[in-house]
Amino acid sequence: MRLDEMSQEQLAEFEKETRKEYEKFKAEGLKLDMSRGKPAAEQLDIAMGILDAVKSGDDLSDESGADCRNYGGLDGIPEAKRLFSVMLGVKLSQVIVAGNSSLNMMYDMIAKNYIFGTGDGAKPWGKLEKVKWLCPCPGYDRHFAICEAFGIEMINVPMGKTGPDMDMVEKLVSEDESIKGIWCVPMYSNPTGITYSDETVRRFASLKPKAADFRIFWDNAYCIHHLTDQPDSLLNIMEECEKVGSEDMVYIFGSTSKVTFAGAGLAFMGASEKNISYYKGLLGIQTIGYDKINMLRHVRFLKDEEGLKAHMKKLADLIRPKFDTVLRILDEQLTPLGIGEWHRPAGGYFISFDAPEGCAKRIAQLCREAGVTLTGAGATFPYGKDPKDSNLRIAPTYPPVSELEEAAKLFAISAKLAAAEVLRK
Amino acid sequence: MRLDEMSQEQLAEFEKETRKEYEKFKAEGLKLDMSRGKPAAEQLDIAMGILDAVKSGDDLSDESGADCRNYGGLDGIPEAKRLFSVMLGVKLSQVIVAGNSSLNMMYDMIAKNYIFGTGDGAKPWGKLEKVKWLCPCPGYDRHFAICEAFGIEMINVPMGKTGPDMDMVEKLVSEDESIKGIWCVPMYSNPTGITYSDETVRRFASLKPKAADFRIFWDNAYCIHHLTDQPDSLLNIMEECEKVGSEDMVYIFGSTSKVTFAGAGLAFMGASEKNISYYKGLLGIQTIGYDKINMLRHVRFLKDEEGLKAHMKKLADLIRPKFDTVLRILDEQLTPLGIGEWHRPAGGYFISFDAPEGCAKRIAQLCREAGVTLTGAGATFPYGKDPKDSNLRIAPTYPPVSELEEAAKLFAISAKLAAAEVLRK
Repeated sequence: MRLDEMSQEQLAEFEKETRKEYEKFKAEGLKLDMSRGKPAAEQLDIAMGILDAVKSGDDLSDESGADCRNYGGLDGIPEAKRLFSVMLGVKLSQVIVAGNSSLNMMYDMIAKNYIFGTGDGAKPWGKLEKVKWLCPCPGYDRHFAICEAFGIEMINVPMGKTGPDMDMVEKLVSEDESIKGIWCVPMYSNPTGITYSDETVRRFASLKPKAADFRIFWDNAYCIHHLTDQPDSLLNIMEECEKVGSEDMVYIFGSTSKVTFAGAGLAFMGASEKNISYYKGLLGIQTIGYDKINMLRHVRFLKDEEGLKAHMKKLADLIRPKFDTVLRILDEQLTPLGIGEWHRPAGGYFISFDAPEGCAKRIAQLCREAGVTLTGAGATFPYGKDPKDSNLRIAPTYPPVSELEEAAKLFAISAKLAAAEVLRK
Repeated sequence: MRLDEMSQEQLAEFEKETRKEYEKFKAEGLKLDMSRGKPAAEQLDIAMGILDAVKSGDDLSDESGADCRNYGGLDGIPEAKRLFSVMLGVKLSQVIVAGNSSLNMMYDMIAKNYIFGTGDGAKPWGKLEKVKWLCPCPGYDRHFAICEAFGIEMINVPMGKTGPDMDMVEKLVSEDESIKGIWCVPMYSNPTGITYSDETVRRFASLKPKAADFRIFWDNAYCIHHLTDQPDSLLNIMEECEKVGSEDMVYIFGSTSKVTFAGAGLAFMGASEKNISYYKGLLGIQTIGYDKINMLRHVRFLKDEEGLKAHMKKLADLIRPKFDTVLRILDEQLTPLGIGEWHRPAGGYFISFDAPEGCAKRIAQLCREAGVTLTGAGATFPYGKDPKDSNLRIAPTYPPVSELEEAAKLFAISAKLAAAEVLRK
């Protein structure tokens, strides 16, 4: 029987039984951190070969003949630019391969535009009275934290099954010149796991923002992180922009943080030649260049697009059972009761759980008190404020399957208990 | 005979002879880039062992047990923090080990203070009408380029044999609240090669700036780059600051760019606990962390302070003959003629040459036209404007000794020719 069809008596009995189950879990003394999308040790083990890809006896020249041990090459070595331009879906002339963190690159692009402007004559964002930003949500908390740090006012845009509410996006950007950007995780979205539809991508490319310096921050973090043999497909935003002449409107980001080593990978950005040229001008003041040996290491280990795909398949084989475990338990425990909604993602790092309204914080609290830390309730919304107190992000990659099973059961029990508490009121 | 003692006839004859020598060099078709302080291939060869310091079979935990392959650890792994805090002369609680570029860290500190302020309640620099900066010169062109990019007005401060003109520094910072910082390369200064005297360091620590958010950018890039067995010594600025309670006034920077690999090394910053805490708060928005595997690689290769010293000694043995070659040729060719002044540095990367007034651009042009590129004349001054058109920076490390000998001879001949041309007018 669905929870919302139960009488108050039935609910009271259900809550009592569930609380017993919960207390049993609590007594087990679990201790598990599922708060961040961290790779598991077995995933990292698969990348260990990268440490031997560049050894002391090797020639450390890139394919242009430049010595990767020395200064030079602001935008990356040619072979790394080639491999990762393909990954981002941009031309070789449209890519910069940089440091170890795409988050840092996104932050830097906002900082550059804040201090110096976007390079097309518009005022630097830091000189404006007010800068606003569109935040499809639920979304990525670290994106929102950047906006908050810069004092950028965030506007919630609801995420649907095909991407952000594009009617709202089109309307807002065409009317309000102070809206300067939007965060997008277009494939296996963090956290909802959906991939933007072709129509959504085309509507993004065709946006007619009132602000000439409006920018789409296209964080394509999970573009190769497929979990199944039927992966989603995402239309190439750069190609769509080029068709309509809007290629200066989009910055595309990616990294190997969850491909090789988290924190010791590479980050890269795709953008129009005009944007790349402007950004390189600014970047040349900031640094002489990035770690070219790590670029060499990556290309020699991953080799090419096929090598990258084969590596990602190995990772998927490790991650898929974890997603399956969580989804199975949610299906078994919550579907019959009609508690919550979630999506079965074909890739990415997260399962997004929409609890009954007013339950998310309580579920996180119940889990925490029984030893399982989730990403804080509210974190998937700007300013940490989920208006419905409903969304929770589950990050299944890090724990071993056995622990994950326990954690997912605890999660389900907590969801039941929270839902019953709300309905009993 | 000194050039300035020659009659016009003698000068004409001298110029004619020198021009002949110059034309001979030009005909040789040299092609040499001495514009930047780049390590030579033999120096990089000495660091090749670092590539084997972390292999696929190794345990990649840092000494706290954290897996360096995964996310975490914003301020660096403990063993790297320990090694490089010693190098910077600060406590373990006063260091952040970060990415691959100390230039980038300095840029970031200015950007942070520009956007968010220094954290003590003062307005962000970007919100002020005017921000000024003291620039001891000759100095490092990339420092000046950062100020120029941020629209910070640079004020020239003459460099002497014991450091910047401290009377001028003290007077200016105590009077003008819009002066927010000063660039210092306190040891083996870029380019003059001098090391700040103890008195200079103490006077820096005791500065009483009008601006509470005034900061000393102490770029200690060459603190371990000794060339001889009689190295200079530099007083510890952090200790001096702590004695007088001014420890929040200084940021100290260093890197291994010229220790291991240029661009694939580590950068680090020393600062008071208060500054570190504030900066880490901002940094946590920008990135999840830096490349901990490269930190592990560095510590396992360099081991400890003794290991670092032994490594630097090997580098010094390669670099010293190059400095000696240039200095010998300058001594032989120019001293008898009384042309120019230069310092014999006990470390660092540069020889600074003060040509007779009005000669620097002409010398650089003559060298360039005969195939040797120097750092552009004027580059060692803010806005590229050397008021006396006198200073040139010679970077002897990159070319092999044989080529360097030719280049130094060409340099001396060009200096003679330029000096004669000026005196003949």
